Amino acid sequence: MNIIDIIEKKRDKKTLTKEEINYFIENYTNGKIADYQASALLMAIFLNGMDDEETTNLALAMAKSGEILDLSKINGIIVDKHSTGGVGDKVSLILLPLVASCGVPVAKMSGRGLGFTGGTVDKLESIPGYNTKIDMNTFMQNVEKIGISMISQTLNLAPADKKIYALRDSISCVESIPLIASSIMSKKIASGADKIVLDVTVGSGAFMKTKEKARKLAKQMIEIGKLANRETVCVLTNMDEPLGYAVGNSLEVIEAIEFLNGNIIEDVKEVVLELGANMLKLAGIGEDIEQNKELLMKNIKNGKAFEKFKELVQMQGGDITYLEDVEKFQKAKYIEYVYSEEKGYIRKIDAKEIGKIVCELGAGRIEKEDEIDYSVGLILRKKVSDKVAKGEEIAYIYANDTEKLGIAKQKLLKNIKISEEKVEKPKIVLGKEQ
Amino acid sequence: MNIIDIIEKKRDKKTLTKEEINYFIENYTNGKIADYQASALLMAIFLNGMDDEETTNLALAMAKSGEILDLSKINGIIVDKHSTGGVGDKVSLILLPLVASCGVPVAKMSGRGLGFTGGTVDKLESIPGYNTKIDMNTFMQNVEKIGISMISQTLNLAPADKKIYALRDSISCVESIPLIASSIMSKKIASGADKIVLDVTVGSGAFMKTKEKARKLAKQMIEIGKLANRETVCVLTNMDEPLGYAVGNSLEVIEAIEFLNGNIIEDVKEVVLELGANMLKLAGIGEDIEQNKELLMKNIKNGKAFEKFKELVQMQGGDITYLEDVEKFQKAKYIEYVYSEEKGYIRKIDAKEIGKIVCELGAGRIEKEDEIDYSVGLILRKKVSDKVAKGEEIAYIYANDTEKLGIAKQKLLKNIKISEEKVEKPKIVLGKEQ
Repeated sequence: MNIIDIIEKKRDKKTLTKEEINYFIENYTNGKIADYQASALLMAIFLNGMDDEETTNLALAMAKSGEILDLSKINGIIVDKHSTGGVGDKVSLILLPLVASCGVPVAKMSGRGLGFTGGTVDKLESIPGYNTKIDMNTFMQNVEKIGISMISQTLNLAPADKKIYALRDSISCVESIPLIASSIMSKKIASGADKIVLDVTVGSGAFMKTKEKARKLAKQMIEIGKLANRETVCVLTNMDEPLGYAVGNSLEVIEAIEFLNGNIIEDVKEVVLELGANMLKLAGIGEDIEQNKELLMKNIKNGKAFEKFKELVQMQGGDITYLEDVEKFQKAKYIEYVYSEEKGYIRKIDAKEIGKIVCELGAGRIEKEDEIDYSVGLILRKKVSDKVAKGEEIAYIYANDTEKLGIAKQKLLKNIKISEEKVEKPKIVLGKEQ
Repeated sequence: MNIIDIIEKKRDKKTLTKEEINYFIENYTNGKIADYQASALLMAIFLNGMDDEETTNLALAMAKSGEILDLSKINGIIVDKHSTGGVGDKVSLILLPLVASCGVPVAKMSGRGLGFTGGTVDKLESIPGYNTKIDMNTFMQNVEKIGISMISQTLNLAPADKKIYALRDSISCVESIPLIASSIMSKKIASGADKIVLDVTVGSGAFMKTKEKARKLAKQMIEIGKLANRETVCVLTNMDEPLGYAVGNSLEVIEAIEFLNGNIIEDVKEVVLELGANMLKLAGIGEDIEQNKELLMKNIKNGKAFEKFKELVQMQGGDITYLEDVEKFQKAKYIEYVYSEEKGYIRKIDAKEIGKIVCELGAGRIEKEDEIDYSVGLILRKKVSDKVAKGEEIAYIYANDTEKLGIAKQKLLKNIKISEEKVEKPKIVLGKEQ
C-alpha cells in the first residue's frame, strides 16, 4: 500500500477501503506521509466526496490515532453534548449542570475559542480559581462524586484530527461534510461517550450557512454514530444572530448564572431544553421529550441546576462567591452605550460579525497563542424582531481600550440592520435528526 | 492576494486571473507558498481543469520563473523540436543535423532520461568526448558557426516547472492536460525558440495512451503557442512499439549514424520526415510539406545531413572516428540472441515494457542520480506485423551482467506477443494539429 495510489484512487472518485484510510491516518500522524500528500488527498476528498462507510472509517481511524478515554468506570450512560460552534453560545454552562442535576453523569471536555467562536473552557476560566486542567483521575472522581466535571481537552485526543484540521484550514478544505463530520465524531468517539447529542448550528455565525447543509452534516454524523455504535441525535439550531444577549467570556458566564437563577431568556431556553430533553432521553431518564423538558424547567426553578453549577465550580477550585454575587466579576474599564440611529424593527444582527467584533475587543484569539481578556464583550439590548425607537439603547460595549471600543461601536452599528416593516421572531430550534 | 483564496477559487471551479497565477508561481518558487498549499491547488486544477488562458498564463509564469534564453542574436527563425517521450526515440539525433543541413539554425537543449524514457543528452554523451555542458556563449557561437549545437539543459530554465513536476509526481497529479501542456510549453518558451514542432507520442511507451488524449494535449499546446506568440505544430506519432530497432544509448546512436548513412528504417523515416518538413515550413524554407520531405531525403542521400552531424560532434569535442567506424563504440560484455518460441506474426512489442527492460539493464536511471551504462540495451530483429518462424531471432540483448541479462530475456519474451493471424503494419504518423 502506498499513499500515491491512495491519492490516485480518491482522485478517480473510487471508494477507499478501511485499510487504506487507516494506512493514511497512521502514517500521516507519525510523519511518514508528508503534508503535501495529505493535502492532495484532502482536496480530492473535498471535491469527490466520501460515502458513509469511508467517513466512519476516517472518524474511527482519527479517534484511534491518540488516547481514547475510558469512561466505563462511571455509573450510568454518558451522553456527550457538542455544538458545531456559535456566537454567544453559553448553552453548555447552563445545560450541563442542569442535566447533571437530573441524574445524568456529565464528563465533559471542552475546547477553547478560536476566531469569532468562543469556547466553553475560556468562559469557565473567567471564574477566578476555576481549574480546567485537572488530571484524568480527578476528573473521573469528580464525576463520580458530584455527577459532573467540565475541563479542557488535556488528553492527546485524536491528534490526527488536529493535524488534518490545521492543514485543511490552510488549503481551503474546511467546508466539506465528510471532513467536518469525521472530525467532530472522531473527537466524540475518543472522548469515551456512550451517546451523543449534537447542536448543529445554522446561519451566519455557524459553519453551516443553510439548513440544507446543516441537515446533510447532521445525517452524516448520525450515520457515523450508527456505524460506530454511538447513538447520536442532532438538533439543528439557528445561529443567524447571537444566542441570548451577552457575547464575551465573563459576560456570558453572568448571563448563564442569571439564567440558572430563573432569569430565563427565550432563545437560550429553547436550545437548552431541546438538547437537554434529548440527553435525558438518551440517558434513559425518560422517553417523552415534553416531559423531559418539564423536568428540566423544574430543576431550574427549584434551584437544583444552579446548586449543581456551584458544586461544579467549587469542586474545580473556582470561587463560588462570584456565582452568588456576579457584581464581583471584574468589569471592563469602559462601558459604552450604543443607541439606535433609526427606528423600526431589528431585522438582522449578524452573528459572525458580532463574534468578530468581540474577538477584536480581546475576548477571543486570532492566533492560537493569543491571551484573552475575560471582561470585554458586548450585551445586546435588542434581538431580531424587537421594536426599536431612534436613540434607544441597542447594545452596551465592554472594552479596555478606547481605540478598539471606537472600532467596535462603528462595526456594531453597521451589523445591526433595522427595517421599517415588522419582522417575525426567528425560529430557534430548526429541526431534529436522529 | 493570498494562496488560500486562490485554492478556494479553483476548488470552486472558478477561473484564475493572470495575477493570481503569477502570484502562485512566484511565491511557490521562492518558497513563500508551502508544498502542501501548492499540492492542494494542483489537485484542484487536476480535478476542475483550466481554460486556455489560464493554462497559457501558467506556462508563461513558469517560463518567467527562471532564466529565459535570448536567441535573438542568431540569424534565422529558430524552430525548437520536442518529443513528449518515447522508447528507442533517436529522432533528434537524425532530425536536427538534417534540418540544420537544410539551413535551419538548431540551438537545442535536451534532457536526460528518467525511468523507461531515454534522453537525447545521454545518447550524445555515449560518443566519447562529446561535451553537452558548454556555456551559453559557446553554444550560441557554435550555432552561428555551423548552424547547430545540441547541449544539455544547463540553464536554470523554468525552475517553477521543475518544482511543480516533482510535486505532481508524488501526489498523483501527473496525467492532467493543462498541467502537462503548461509544463512542456514553459520550457519551450524559456528555451527561446521562435516556433515549435512537437512530437506528441501516443501509446504504451508514451504519456498519452490514446489518440484522443494526445490530440487534446496537442490542441492545448497549440493554443498556448498562439496566445504566447510561439507558432506551434504538433505531429501525433505512434509509440506503441519502440521506434526503430535499437533501444539503448550507444546502440541508438549507431542506428542514427547508419540512418544518416542511408540505412533507412521505415518508421524512423516517417517520423523524421514529418517533423522535419514541418520544421522547414515554420522556418520559412518551403510551404509545401511534400517538397520539404523530398529536400530532407535528398540531404540524407547526398550525405549533407551526416556531414552536419559530424561537424556538430567535432565542434562539441566528440571523437568523430566513432561516427566513421561504429565498431569503435564500446560493446557490452554479453550479447545474447533471443529466439522466438512461437511462429506467426508479431502482434505487439510493448514500448513501455521494453523501455523498462533496457532501463534495468543499466541504460537508464531509476533515480535522478543513477549512473548509466551506454553500451547496454537491445536490438529488435522484428517489428510489429513481421512474420516470424519458431526459433528465429527476434532480438539481441546487450548486457554487462549475466543476472540482469537473464531477467531481461525472460521479460522480453513475455512482452513480445505473436499471433497466428496476419497483423497489419501500424500507422506511424497518426495525425497533425496546428
